[in-house]
Amino acid sequence: MTYHLAYMNLRGRGEPVRWVLKALDVSFTEERIDVLTQWLSRKNEFEWGQTPVLMVDGVQLHQTTTICRYLGEKHHLASTDLWNATRQQEVVEAFHDVSFDFSLAFTARIKQDETLKNNSLEKARKRLLEIVLILESRITDQGWVLSHDMTWVDVFLAAYLESYSAYFPEILEGVSKTQALMECVMALPVIKAWLKIRPHWSSLEDPQNFL
Amino acid sequence: MTYHLAYMNLRGRGEPVRWVLKALDVSFTEERIDVLTQWLSRKNEFEWGQTPVLMVDGVQLHQTTTICRYLGEKHHLASTDLWNATRQQEVVEAFHDVSFDFSLAFTARIKQDETLKNNSLEKARKRLLEIVLILESRITDQGWVLSHDMTWVDVFLAAYLESYSAYFPEILEGVSKTQALMECVMALPVIKAWLKIRPHWSSLEDPQNFL
Repeated sequence: MTYHLAYMNLRGRGEPVRWVLKALDVSFTEERIDVLTQWLSRKNEFEWGQTPVLMVDGVQLHQTTTICRYLGEKHHLASTDLWNATRQQEVVEAFHDVSFDFSLAFTARIKQDETLKNNSLEKARKRLLEIVLILESRITDQGWVLSHDMTWVDVFLAAYLESYSAYFPEILEGVSKTQALMECVMALPVIKAWLKIRPHWSSLEDPQNFL
Repeated sequence: MTYHLAYMNLRGRGEPVRWVLKALDVSFTEERIDVLTQWLSRKNEFEWGQTPVLMVDGVQLHQTTTICRYLGEKHHLASTDLWNATRQQEVVEAFHDVSFDFSLAFTARIKQDETLKNNSLEKARKRLLEIVLILESRITDQGWVLSHDMTWVDVFLAAYLESYSAYFPEILEGVSKTQALMECVMALPVIKAWLKIRPHWSSLEDPQNFL
């Protein structure tokens, strides 16, 4: 099995895939496509015209949640009970949905549409405050989402939580299990090492100049 | 197993769930919540503040694609090979993504924001023209998406195709396998019966006065 990840030079939807690949300890190569100077001319290389794309033995697989679930199941870092896996997926999709608001805000910012940018960010913030409460209620005494042991779902959520909370730190207030889940994943040696060497936020998505 | 579907008085994201439930021939009850007069006061009854919600033995399950996949796997109308199921899910998510553009257009229309409404609809139309071509390439000689036999994925896609093509008939031009897939699902006796008795489009989403 060879894995090659193609994504833009952003955290965005790529970071959950990177974290899951790291946590699985599978080897992979990665290319980062510059949003402003390279993306438009390279878009057509991708079957669906979108990234992240994971090349699996040379075949393009797209869709963030589909890629991560595939990796988790393939490498046995997944719940095998259908109902549990479904209830986990429900949380995964809810957090991924928020990336659509960020994506809208991101595009609006590039187009200098301040109203749409601010509305989209506020929508994301309000939604995150609601859904972390549900996540919190689904974390077991062992610290993972509806599971005795860590699954890809925890890694995926931790990656989004770490990004989203850089924009809105308040989403982690009063949800101690959620915060602990994120920190446990960040303390995994492979993730800890990644956090030290990963590129800084692109200036386009850096919370410092985005909000 | 008891199933109860809660969704607004729309086709939207509810119709794929309805079709999958019908195709599985499981019994279910349904409530339709009026968007304008009931939704705001009932929103808080739903754990995630969203519908469609499928009550599974009284437990709320949300997220359209998660609900449908769960039903398909639970009732064995699903591919069991991980790679195949993943490649099907990729198509499912791509078609579901378009519902975000429709949802934006829908809200923009209610708020009388003509520019956002038209931009969102045009984005949906262009995306659909791209992704039906990929769907077309993944339909087997037997007529189903990456499968010898019909799965929940085909039913799900047929429901979205039937709705989306009511807005943009051109998405079915030149993709004969896709059109045949949709028609085969619509010809299933349970779906055929549903098409005869289902409520007409809500005036809010009726393509006749939406475009």
